[in-house]
Amino acid sequence: MHGWTVGVDFGGTNIKVGLVTGTGRVEGDAMLLTREHATPTRFLNGLHDTIERLGKRLGRRIALRGVGVGAPGLIDGERGVIYRLVNVPGGWRGVPLQRLLEQRFRSPCAVDNDVNAVALGEWRFGAGRGTRHSVYITLGTGVGGGLVVNGQLVRGAIGSAGEVGHMKIALTGPRCGCGSRGCLEAFIGTAAILRLARGAMRRGSRILRRLATEHHGRLTPELISEAARRGDRAALRTWHEVGSYLGLGLASVINLLNPERIVIGGGVSKAWPYFASRLTATIRTHAFEDPLAACRILPATLGERGGIVGAAILVWERAK
Amino acid sequence: MHGWTVGVDFGGTNIKVGLVTGTGRVEGDAMLLTREHATPTRFLNGLHDTIERLGKRLGRRIALRGVGVGAPGLIDGERGVIYRLVNVPGGWRGVPLQRLLEQRFRSPCAVDNDVNAVALGEWRFGAGRGTRHSVYITLGTGVGGGLVVNGQLVRGAIGSAGEVGHMKIALTGPRCGCGSRGCLEAFIGTAAILRLARGAMRRGSRILRRLATEHHGRLTPELISEAARRGDRAALRTWHEVGSYLGLGLASVINLLNPERIVIGGGVSKAWPYFASRLTATIRTHAFEDPLAACRILPATLGERGGIVGAAILVWERAK
Repeated sequence: MHGWTVGVDFGGTNIKVGLVTGTGRVEGDAMLLTREHATPTRFLNGLHDTIERLGKRLGRRIALRGVGVGAPGLIDGERGVIYRLVNVPGGWRGVPLQRLLEQRFRSPCAVDNDVNAVALGEWRFGAGRGTRHSVYITLGTGVGGGLVVNGQLVRGAIGSAGEVGHMKIALTGPRCGCGSRGCLEAFIGTAAILRLARGAMRRGSRILRRLATEHHGRLTPELISEAARRGDRAALRTWHEVGSYLGLGLASVINLLNPERIVIGGGVSKAWPYFASRLTATIRTHAFEDPLAACRILPATLGERGGIVGAAILVWERAK
Repeated sequence: MHGWTVGVDFGGTNIKVGLVTGTGRVEGDAMLLTREHATPTRFLNGLHDTIERLGKRLGRRIALRGVGVGAPGLIDGERGVIYRLVNVPGGWRGVPLQRLLEQRFRSPCAVDNDVNAVALGEWRFGAGRGTRHSVYITLGTGVGGGLVVNGQLVRGAIGSAGEVGHMKIALTGPRCGCGSRGCLEAFIGTAAILRLARGAMRRGSRILRRLATEHHGRLTPELISEAARRGDRAALRTWHEVGSYLGLGLASVINLLNPERIVIGGGVSKAWPYFASRLTATIRTHAFEDPLAACRILPATLGERGGIVGAAILVWERAK
C-alpha cells in the first residue's frame, strides 16, 4: 500500500487532519478551527488547502489514496451522509459529505461517526488489534462506543449503533442527557463523576478538597485522579463507584456480544489505574464465566491520533 | 435449490427432525425422545433412522443437502463443536458433532446453539424477513436471544453471544439463575412472572385466583394471560410490569445495536397482546428517537417449527 490516506477528526473545537500510512502511522498533521470551517463549503476549502500544505511540508506531491472523515453526530456511514452534527453549527443536515469529498478530491472517500472511526482505529492498530470482535467505549462528558463484530463495523439500520453509554444499568436514576433515566452515561459521564466526588468529599477528604480550592473550587476528573494517586479516600471511593457502574455495563456487553476485546478510551480512561480493579471485580460477579475468560479489557493505546487513523481506515474498509 | 436439508431441534425432552425445503417449508417431520438418544452415538443412529423413515414416508429417495442441528448449550457454531449441553445428559463435553454428522451423512452439516438457529429462522423466513439487522429474543423459563448483524449471525469469540436475558437492567434485584443480580431474565423469566402475579393477586384478583384454584393452585403464564383476557386487574398489572422491564432491556438493545427488527418469541410471547402497549411506551421513554423509528418490534411467526427451519439455515449459512 503506497501513498497516504487523509484522516480527518472533525471535532466541535478543532478539525485535526493527518496523513496516514498503510501501517497506521501519522506522517504529517495539522489543525483547523472548527468555527472558521463550520459550513460544508468552508470545510472542503479548508481541508483542500491543508492537504496541499501538508504535501509541501513533506516536500513532495501526495499520492492521495482517499479522504476519511469522522464527525460527531448522526451519520449514515454506509452512504457517507451526515444527518446532523452535535456541537457544530453551519447547517449540516442531510449533507452527502462523502459525495462532496469525492467530487473535490477525485479519490475514494468515507464519512462516519467519530467514535466509530476511533473504534476502527483501536481495532486495527490499537488495543483491539488481532481480534474479530472488539468493543470500544469512550469515557468523557458523554459515554460513547463503537462495535466491531465479525471483523466489521456495526452501524445498524441508520448508523446509530454503538451507544454503549445509553444501555440501561438501572431501573431508574439521575436523568441522562438523552432524556431517559438509568443510562450508563448518567452514572459515569463526567458530570456524574463530579457529583459522586462531591458526595464522597462531604464524608471527609482533605487532599481532594485542597486540590479543588487551589483550582478555584473547580473539580475535574484529573483532580480526582491526582487526589486518588495521593491516597485521598473520597477520590478513591469515587473511582471505585465508577468502576462498579462501568462493570455492570460491560458485563451486559460481554453477555450480549461475547467480544474478544473491550477497549476503554476517552479522557476519563486516564483514571484506569484507579477504577480497573473494581471494574474487573464487578464484571467477574456479573458476566458469564466462559465469555469473560475469552475477553480482555484494555485501555486504548492510540490516544489523540485514534480519530485521524480511524478516519483513514473508514476509506479502506469501504474499498474492501 | 433442490432436495431437502434436515433441520434438527435438539431439546431437553424431544428431538424434532424435519425436512426443510429451500423456501423454508417443513415437508415432513418426526420426533424422538431425548432420553432415548442422549449420547452422541445414539443421537446419530436415531437421526439416521428417522431420516430414512421420513424419506420412505415421502415415497422417494431424499437428495440430502445437509443436516443442521440446534441444541441448548454452549456451542462453537463456527466449528460445530458442543462444549456442553444444558438439560441433556449423555456426556456432551467437547463433542465435534458437525464432523461426526458429516462422516455419517456425507453432506455439509452444521451445529449451533438452538436460540441462534431460531434467530436465523425468524430472520430469513419469519418476522425478521427482509432485514440486515435483526434481534431475536425468546421469553420463557429463561430469556435468551440471537443477533443478526450485517446479515450475519453474531456468535462472538466462543459462540456465546446473544444472551439478551443476561443484560443488566437494574443495579440489583432478585438473584438470577446465572448467579448475578439485575439480569433481565431475573425480572421476566417465568419464575419472576409468577412471583409478580402472586404479588399482584394479594392486592385483589378474583378471576386469576379462581383460575389458579381450578388448576390445583398452580399458576402459569397461560393462566395469567387467560385472566388478563377476562379483565383481571392483577393479571393485567403483571403483564404491564413485564412490558416495562422488557422495554428497558429492548431500549438498551436498540441504542446499542440499532436493529431494523426485534422479534419476540418463546412460550411467554403469547401474552404479547397484554404486554405490547406497555412495552412500546417504555421503549419510547428510554430509547433514542431515530433508531427507534427505524425499528419494528414484532412477535415471532414461525412458532414451533422455527427451531427446525433455523437448524437447516445453519447449513446454508455455512456453505456461503
